[in-house]
Amino acid sequence: MNNKLVKEITSRDTDFAKWYTDVCLKAELMDYSYVKGFIIYRPYGYAIWENIQDYLNKKFKETNHQNVYLPLLIPESLFQKEKDHVEGFAPETAMVTTTGVEDLTERLIIRPTSEVLFCEHYKKIISSHRDLPKLYNQWCSVVRWEKTTRPFLRGSEFLWQEGHTAHSNKEEAKEETLRMLDIYNKMGSELLAVPFVTGRKTEKEKFAGALETYSIEALMHDGKALQSGTTHYFGQEFSKAFDITFTNKENKLEHVYQTSWGVSTRLIGAVIMVHGDDSGLVLPPYVAPTQVIIIPIQSKLPIVLDACNKLYEDLKSLGLRVEFDNSDKSPGWKFSESEMKGIPVRIEIGPKDLEKGEVTLFKRYNREKSTFKIEDIKDNINNILNDIHQNMLKAAKVHVSKNTRTAKTYDDFKEMIDLGGYVKMSISGEEAELIIKKDTTATARVILDEPVVTKICPVTNKKATQTILFARAY
Amino acid sequence: MNNKLVKEITSRDTDFAKWYTDVCLKAELMDYSYVKGFIIYRPYGYAIWENIQDYLNKKFKETNHQNVYLPLLIPESLFQKEKDHVEGFAPETAMVTTTGVEDLTERLIIRPTSEVLFCEHYKKIISSHRDLPKLYNQWCSVVRWEKTTRPFLRGSEFLWQEGHTAHSNKEEAKEETLRMLDIYNKMGSELLAVPFVTGRKTEKEKFAGALETYSIEALMHDGKALQSGTTHYFGQEFSKAFDITFTNKENKLEHVYQTSWGVSTRLIGAVIMVHGDDSGLVLPPYVAPTQVIIIPIQSKLPIVLDACNKLYEDLKSLGLRVEFDNSDKSPGWKFSESEMKGIPVRIEIGPKDLEKGEVTLFKRYNREKSTFKIEDIKDNINNILNDIHQNMLKAAKVHVSKNTRTAKTYDDFKEMIDLGGYVKMSISGEEAELIIKKDTTATARVILDEPVVTKICPVTNKKATQTILFARAY
Repeated sequence: MNNKLVKEITSRDTDFAKWYTDVCLKAELMDYSYVKGFIIYRPYGYAIWENIQDYLNKKFKETNHQNVYLPLLIPESLFQKEKDHVEGFAPETAMVTTTGVEDLTERLIIRPTSEVLFCEHYKKIISSHRDLPKLYNQWCSVVRWEKTTRPFLRGSEFLWQEGHTAHSNKEEAKEETLRMLDIYNKMGSELLAVPFVTGRKTEKEKFAGALETYSIEALMHDGKALQSGTTHYFGQEFSKAFDITFTNKENKLEHVYQTSWGVSTRLIGAVIMVHGDDSGLVLPPYVAPTQVIIIPIQSKLPIVLDACNKLYEDLKSLGLRVEFDNSDKSPGWKFSESEMKGIPVRIEIGPKDLEKGEVTLFKRYNREKSTFKIEDIKDNINNILNDIHQNMLKAAKVHVSKNTRTAKTYDDFKEMIDLGGYVKMSISGEEAELIIKKDTTATARVILDEPVVTKICPVTNKKATQTILFARAY
Repeated sequence: MNNKLVKEITSRDTDFAKWYTDVCLKAELMDYSYVKGFIIYRPYGYAIWENIQDYLNKKFKETNHQNVYLPLLIPESLFQKEKDHVEGFAPETAMVTTTGVEDLTERLIIRPTSEVLFCEHYKKIISSHRDLPKLYNQWCSVVRWEKTTRPFLRGSEFLWQEGHTAHSNKEEAKEETLRMLDIYNKMGSELLAVPFVTGRKTEKEKFAGALETYSIEALMHDGKALQSGTTHYFGQEFSKAFDITFTNKENKLEHVYQTSWGVSTRLIGAVIMVHGDDSGLVLPPYVAPTQVIIIPIQSKLPIVLDACNKLYEDLKSLGLRVEFDNSDKSPGWKFSESEMKGIPVRIEIGPKDLEKGEVTLFKRYNREKSTFKIEDIKDNINNILNDIHQNMLKAAKVHVSKNTRTAKTYDDFKEMIDLGGYVKMSISGEEAELIIKKDTTATARVILDEPVVTKICPVTNKKATQTILFARAY
């Protein structure tokens, strides 16, 4: 019985892509809908997103951000106001042209991102330095018409948050861009147990319309990188295009300085591909919808049922997300199911152990079983969960450091890229970046804040100007 | 100064509709966007919605509902599967027909409601009675192309929650329909201080595709009714159209029984129009984004500043939503602003009062000022807020009972309808309903669970079969 579910998923080494979609479906995170690239977020998958939302909403509030909601639809003419921005997004826009009763006079774009809407709003509500900063955030879904789609990683519709801020000076806006990057980075270590590499994007890889883009990058089990969130410094690019001005303290009219930043349900994909194993999903405890599951052995026995109920109430009273599976499925089936769903801790309660006042505790991430006195669980469970989180984070860090290499020649680079993981190399600039992408499909993930590895770019033989972290990426 | 802001809004008696939009804009609840009927939910308005979400999410969870997210777009062919449903919504649908790069092969409808998506999903994931019930809820925005739009009350896009459930038998589904109606009703008395009248809708007024629709109706200050939420019992209408079957306990194939239910940002409109006055918004404490605002008089004085900071921390530690307005605006300006925004309690702290260890407490709903010992505030504030809530609810109930009349003749009915408020009358059925609507624009709000008032319908002179609560409505 225990093997049945496990056998249903492809192993990671056989076919990582297939393993991934198997886990998405069998752990009941999502399902496909009738429109390509539009997925159904099932309760278990959506609950992960809600935990991410709760974490970030708390951090956003602590840093004085306010939530708002702006329209779903953008008039085409408004969208075209910032040149780089429209060029970046135009090919992916879904357009409403008719109501079924009558055709619209202007095509309306379903927001692929809301910069232009925030700009129009800011233009209306900002007039003085007293109105600044504006620190707004929006939780919503966006639509970008993608050719190749994969659950959570790349969808024609996805859920995200988009922060949009306006400031009275450059320094404050730049600070904001890095502050939000830091919050995202901390979310990795505190919530997702995913160690991010952070840094600035190259000119080629930056966001359409931004002066600077920063990114959090994660390394998946298969050695490919995943851009997991970005923050952008816009300077006055948008404020000049949209004429968003304010009277500064010297009573002069000036354009505001802006930022935007976002993470999406793609983070769920990162968690799956960093922590999952051949038995399915493995969730770190603080983002897991269910942190502890209690499974009775011989649940018909009153002694077992009572012990389960008492432990359930005890753990519940600690504020934990705990489940007592008292359904009529067999224990073996429940074990498989809880493993597939990656529940961090399973507590098995049976009559034999109970005679000694004991229960069995199973940790999903390392599959370790141990025996506990039932009365000790309540006092120890928070430490156990914290240990699991720390160990999962540590393991993910080891994976990153084992798979980060430094190349001094282009031949080494190509060999290393084929091994998977990150490769550091110092290059001359965009020319080298383009050659590398063409030759190897690897892309610049971030510019590292490190001295150059070689003085000469191994690709162009020109002077090396920056050290870049490369990887093949999702 | 105090009068300045107040004068900016129209009085309720002069022009209620104008007063309403004035409050929406001046209290900074919303702003218009460039697409008609698509509004911007500003931080203060969105925070009210978040408080409603928090309240309902807690109730939904207590009753074992799970949140999910389904796609924004519905293929036109899927939408057309349930005949009554498509007839009800077809005129209001926004359709995506092109991506800018290529035209779509099938038109996609932006969800006006998600019954058909839930049905398709349920068809896939339900097979046995063990899979039932499914109790799902979704928070999202929906689009219905409206000709006449008003902020919060009727928009082409609005925010809502839509619950969709599937059950193994009729009784359970009917219970669910009434359970959710009861939760909505309690939200009125516990959170919004709005007394709802609840009941079943007539055949004419029920939801497209439903067997039974129940509604929560609220009475606005101007005597018009506002349908503020609905719950629907579908029976097997949708499950037959979509072929959603399960194997029951007798091992026979059966179609599931379904419900759906929803409330929207229209509730914000209800709160505005039930409680607001000529100085602006008046918010009941439990839904107010800011429950207490502290305003210093002579904030430059350290003694004032210290007292404000201490009280702020004290109230914060109680878990209250409290604000300390230490900006450089004048106290008078701050008073007006806090009144316009309907903040339930204002505490004014000045040096003169402080000499006696006192502060002034202003209650927004009745504009009552009283003096308090500053050290007593912390112990009393929860009671003060609760009193305000109870008194606002009571006042709203008095308004309803004063404006609920019973008509025994059609002439009386017409006169009473012109007075505003609810009018009870017993009628023969839909024929009478249609005549009444044509003659008076009043509509059947709900069927009352009461014996007939007259044996004969005053409109058709046929036998009266049910007692209906009528009103002119938004």
